[in-house]
Amino acid sequence: MLKNIPPLLGPELLATLRAMGHGDEIVIADANFPAEFLGPQVHRADGISATDLLGAILTVMPLDDFVDQAAIGMAVVGDPHARQPIYDDFQQIITRHEPSMHFSTVERFAFYDRAKKAAAVVQSGETRLYGNILLKKGIIRPKS
Amino acid sequence: MLKNIPPLLGPELLATLRAMGHGDEIVIADANFPAEFLGPQVHRADGISATDLLGAILTVMPLDDFVDQAAIGMAVVGDPHARQPIYDDFQQIITRHEPSMHFSTVERFAFYDRAKKAAAVVQSGETRLYGNILLKKGIIRPKS
Amino acid sequence: MLKNIPPLLGPELLATLRAMGHGDEIVIADANFPAEFLGPQVHRADGISATDLLGAILTVMPLDDFVDQAAIGMAVVGDPHARQPIYDDFQQIITRHEPSMHFSTVERFAFYDRAKKAAAVVQSGETRLYGNILLKKGIIRPKS
Amino acid sequence: MLKNIPPLLGPELLATLRAMGHGDEIVIADANFPAEFLGPQVHRADGISATDLLGAILTVMPLDDFVDQAAIGMAVVGDPHARQPIYDDFQQIITRHEPSMHFSTVERFAFYDRAKKAAAVVQSGETRLYGNILLKKGIIRPKS
Amino acid sequence: MLKNIPPLLGPELLATLRAMGHGDEIVIADANFPAEFLGPQVHRADGISATDLLGAILTVMPLDDFVDQAAIGMAVVGDPHARQPIYDDFQQIITRHEPSMHFSTVERFAFYDRAKKAAAVVQSGETRLYGNILLKKGIIRPKS
Amino acid sequence: MLKNIPPLLGPELLATLRAMGHGDEIVIADANFPAEFLGPQVHRADGISATDLLGAILTVMPLDDFVDQAAIGMAVVGDPHARQPIYDDFQQIITRHEPSMHFSTVERFAFYDRAKKAAAVVQSGETRLYGNILLKKGIIRPKS
Amino acid sequence: MLKNIPPLLGPELLATLRAMGHGDEIVIADANFPAEFLGPQVHRADGISATDLLGAILTVMPLDDFVDQAAIGMAVVGDPHARQPIYDDFQQIITRHEPSMHFSTVERFAFYDRAKKAAAVVQSGETRLYGNILLKKGIIRPKS
Amino acid sequence: MLKNIPPLLGPELLATLRAMGHGDEIVIADANFPAEFLGPQVHRADGISATDLLGAILTVMPLDDFVDQAAIGMAVVGDPHARQPIYDDFQQIITRHEPSMHFSTVERFAFYDRAKKAAAVVQSGETRLYGNILLKKGIIRPKS
Amino acid sequence: MLKNIPPLLGPELLATLRAMGHGDEIVIADANFPAEFLGPQVHRADGISATDLLGAILTVMPLDDFVDQAAIGMAVVGDPHARQPIYDDFQQIITRHEPSMHFSTVERFAFYDRAKKAAAVVQSGETRLYGNILLKKGIIRPKS
Amino acid sequence: MLKNIPPLLGPELLATLRAMGHGDEIVIADANFPAEFLGPQVHRADGISATDLLGAILTVMPLDDFVDQAAIGMAVVGDPHARQPIYDDFQQIITRHEPSMHFSTVERFAFYDRAKKAAAVVQSGETRLYGNILLKKGIIRPKS
Repeated sequence: MLKNIPPLLGPELLATLRAMGHGDEIVIADANFPAEFLGPQVHRADGISATDLLGAILTVMPLDDFVDQAAIGMAVVGDPHARQPIYDDFQQIITRHEPSMHFSTVERFAFYDRAKKAAAVVQSGETRLYGNILLKKGIIRPKS
Repeated sequence: MLKNIPPLLGPELLATLRAMGHGDEIVIADANFPAEFLGPQVHRADGISATDLLGAILTVMPLDDFVDQAAIGMAVVGDPHARQPIYDDFQQIITRHEPSMHFSTVERFAFYDRAKKAAAVVQSGETRLYGNILLKKGIIRPKS
Repeated sequence: MLKNIPPLLGPELLATLRAMGHGDEIVIADANFPAEFLGPQVHRADGISATDLLGAILTVMPLDDFVDQAAIGMAVVGDPHARQPIYDDFQQIITRHEPSMHFSTVERFAFYDRAKKAAAVVQSGETRLYGNILLKKGIIRPKS
Repeated sequence: MLKNIPPLLGPELLATLRAMGHGDEIVIADANFPAEFLGPQVHRADGISATDLLGAILTVMPLDDFVDQAAIGMAVVGDPHARQPIYDDFQQIITRHEPSMHFSTVERFAFYDRAKKAAAVVQSGETRLYGNILLKKGIIRPKS
Repeated sequence: MLKNIPPLLGPELLATLRAMGHGDEIVIADANFPAEFLGPQVHRADGISATDLLGAILTVMPLDDFVDQAAIGMAVVGDPHARQPIYDDFQQIITRHEPSMHFSTVERFAFYDRAKKAAAVVQSGETRLYGNILLKKGIIRPKS
Repeated sequence: MLKNIPPLLGPELLATLRAMGHGDEIVIADANFPAEFLGPQVHRADGISATDLLGAILTVMPLDDFVDQAAIGMAVVGDPHARQPIYDDFQQIITRHEPSMHFSTVERFAFYDRAKKAAAVVQSGETRLYGNILLKKGIIRPKS
Repeated sequence: MLKNIPPLLGPELLATLRAMGHGDEIVIADANFPAEFLGPQVHRADGISATDLLGAILTVMPLDDFVDQAAIGMAVVGDPHARQPIYDDFQQIITRHEPSMHFSTVERFAFYDRAKKAAAVVQSGETRLYGNILLKKGIIRPKS
Repeated sequence: MLKNIPPLLGPELLATLRAMGHGDEIVIADANFPAEFLGPQVHRADGISATDLLGAILTVMPLDDFVDQAAIGMAVVGDPHARQPIYDDFQQIITRHEPSMHFSTVERFAFYDRAKKAAAVVQSGETRLYGNILLKKGIIRPKS
Repeated sequence: MLKNIPPLLGPELLATLRAMGHGDEIVIADANFPAEFLGPQVHRADGISATDLLGAILTVMPLDDFVDQAAIGMAVVGDPHARQPIYDDFQQIITRHEPSMHFSTVERFAFYDRAKKAAAVVQSGETRLYGNILLKKGIIRPKS
Repeated sequence: MLKNIPPLLGPELLATLRAMGHGDEIVIADANFPAEFLGPQVHRADGISATDLLGAILTVMPLDDFVDQAAIGMAVVGDPHARQPIYDDFQQIITRHEPSMHFSTVERFAFYDRAKKAAAVVQSGETRLYGNILLKKGIIRPKS
């Protein structure tokens, strides 16, 4: 373990987050998400909820404020405006780390297509419905 | 995820447990344990307690009833008969899965030497003191 | 071997089943099926029948109840409505594990095309005609 | 599958048997044998009995008639002259393929030490007690 | 070496033949054939004639009787109906192993295109003209 | 880059620091140190001073307070009590992160022997004399 | 370190520069640039400025004088004729090594597309805005 | 070194030449040629002239007499009929080994496209202008 | 194939012979020799006699004239002075290539020990008794 | 090629020289030296003399002035004080780059033992007798 770095972030996940650059994307997937054969590298986080992982990742990784949607979930199939309970949890965690950022959703297959191009997928142990979120990395600005 | 298999057991850990044979050993290590450079393969379980992992593993893996000590922790340094709170948790979980088995401890460096020869080490997120346990796999007997 | 896990499922096959997610597919192929050079990873099960493997896999892997066809065999060439004896065996095993699921078939070359996109192929020792079956993995729902 | 070659022998096992030379040894291990972390390469044969594998292997592989013991099992622990039922099965299969050869046994730890130096271990699904046998490869003599 | 298996078939070639399934193809190429950079894996058989290899392979591998052309050579360039002496040798060996099968030829570039999709190429030491043959694997039928 | 993590720590070095456990050691070596062929993995940090790296590493990695010497340099050859200017810089940085820790030195060849057993070596661009330091990782204690 | 070779150029970067030929391109990227998942190999230079790297690389690598643009930065988004302070620093360093060469810029996405086809990307620690530069390698002419 | 084999041909280059078949191509490239990132495997021959390599290769490798152009250089850019001094050297060496063969040239980008599909590129130390040549391998005919 | 190089020498064997230096040894082993699990790399030459291989290898590889024994066979077990027919064949081939060299033999286990330290083993198809020979490579002297 | 770096030093050799540290050793071996199976990595320089390589390497690599012998050849076998012509060539090149350094020799087998522990061996095309030299790398001192 390291000082000031959330212990949920193991060596490989930490290396991936550090190696990602501006605009690269990472997916936190729920326990049933078909991650292994999707394409990107998979970091396993069996037994860990998607919300705990989101909190840990946002502690170190900035979101991209160059785009409107930097934290994207999957819309409810057949009811794109419906709210899932986990959406509010996602939004609260995002607000804590990036007060001006908003959680949004995209249609299910658009989500899959984007996940295929992500830098990595973290397969969590999340069992709640719609427990997937894609994060777009922002930049660290130079200290003036 | 699979039916009737604890979700804490991811693909690689499950494969290791399945591949182990009679007398092979696996270590559940705490979050500060020096696992990576020890020798055996390491399965990471960041954020998961050693006790949760013990319960998950004993759900599928039998302990070795050919030997007296098949679930071994690390004795308190300098006070080999002292009890740590986590010892009792370990014993309760063992008793639930293997009623006749007893948790025991060995001296710290004997524990390290044995861990070096284990089939694998699971690096948990356990932060409690003395949160390490080595398990010796038993056999599945033919149904009569 | 492990407790409560069918011994036919070896380490690598178990890991593949565990790693598969919602909608990923696995093929149980007969002994003459051209699996090795098809594309997906191959798990060998020489000497084991397709029906024994089907029973072992369905013991741990749920079928996908989001789609109509989650257990698909190959239709008889030139006689798509003909029944093969092994079809009934397949259906019986499916019914035992997933009472509401139905075995169906697709045309031979559609079967091949789908197998190419499967997560894995298990090459069994099945010698009966039309002894191939493709399975689509379902989800484990959270316990309420 | 191939003509005149027992279908139990898959591609990798067949290659190992073919590559072995005079005096090289292979172990057929039972389902609980600790094969994976022993050292030699492991061929899995989950679900197949040790006796079926013995028959398949002896169909193609000659035993070494330069030594007295070319088919060796594990002696009963604590009772080295006791007979196990599977010993007789092993002997019958050996007699069918190599009429002048005799099954013998060595003490348990001598068996382990020899297995560590074997060319390969076949992990069978054998669940009967003492279902392990080590085979020493002989030569194919030139046709006169 | 193994009993009843032609010694020309070394470990890797034997494994390839065993792993091939119904419809997979293998090419026996002459010594000048551009095999190495073609695509499929290459088994070298320097110094061995194409006809000896054909005899060895057909001893264990059935040809595909579901298609009309399962043993295909390269037609003489510019004279597609011309007979090469090695064609007759090929046909004799085929007839010995598969009495009802006929050797046929395809145009040179059609041969190359098919070779690119073969499971493997065996580069022989054949120096006779048109000493190439592509074989399509058949099935082993269950014993009734 | 990541929030609150010194940018000098790239993906692989960060992963190594995270994977190290209690008692594992890492060496910051100067630009002439023979690191590449020593044994441990090497992280290159060409152009970066040893003192900047020390500061970056101690920002995230605790030193081992179970031992007396957790930050060890190389003693001046032939004059083991001599002070090098860089020693004071090392001590100041250590004091800032671990107020109770003291920089010490060991004889040159003892330093080499220990470096061979380190988890990793960071090859810096340090050109000052005696610009090497070995760090022993401590633990993160649970929050009470 | 080596004589007359800038110490910022470590072993792998030096090998890449040496292996590049006429017209191959290398990118010096700033600390936020998404290099890792772009395609080309990445050399890390955490903590080093883009200008220091540019000076070190141009000390050994000639620019391509067969084309008009051999040192290309990224134009300011939305204001393609705007000057960034780092542009002048780039030009000064270029002028020192290649007096007749001019720094130019291309539009952001044209820069990304070209970087994807580069031989390598050096990920620097540059934090200034628009701190990226792509270099096209020239030739060493024979001494007359 | 070996008897009767030019010592310029090291182990890997010799293996490549031996493995190439009828019609496969190899490029001898000059010291500035962009070989490393082109695609084909690269054999380095730093310090060796293209003409010495040509002589060594033609000592063992026949050129293809089925085509009109089996030894092809790069035409002068903008002046396709101009002669370069090295062309005459190439022709003399070719004439010595293959009396009836003629050196020809193709336009620069046609040369690059063909080099991308070559079996290998030998990167020589040639510094003369237009010191590149592509060779198409011929066959060894059976001794009558 | 290449000009003036015996076609029995394929790409990998040719590379090994070329890479061997003064005093390195290579073994031509018979078809029953336990080569695969001995240690050195194995080149397969199924179907080729040991004498044909010896002739091919000595065409390109000089024997070591710094030692008394550079071509060594295995002495008959129990009768170290007995002559085997193949010994004379070996001697004739050696005499043809290296007129002053003599074939000698060493005791069986001394042969095995030396084979373990050889650069490589060529597994031939030789079926004659005592068809093994170890060759020690000599040097190519500079042309005066 | 690169500016001011001898073109004989290709990418991999340059990387090795750059990665070596104080006291690491590299061997320039003649064309008959048994390098490939010795242990260290081998860089091939077929066709290049040992003296040209020595000159190229000493252009960039400092010799170790902490020891008495940093450039060591092999003494004449049986006549340890004899001078070989190439010794004088070696000394002249050394003197040009390191005026105060002296070429020395060690006994043949001491040379072999040291070569086994070297960082790398460069296999040159040197054909002169005793054309081997081992170089011990020195340091680059900070500019005062």
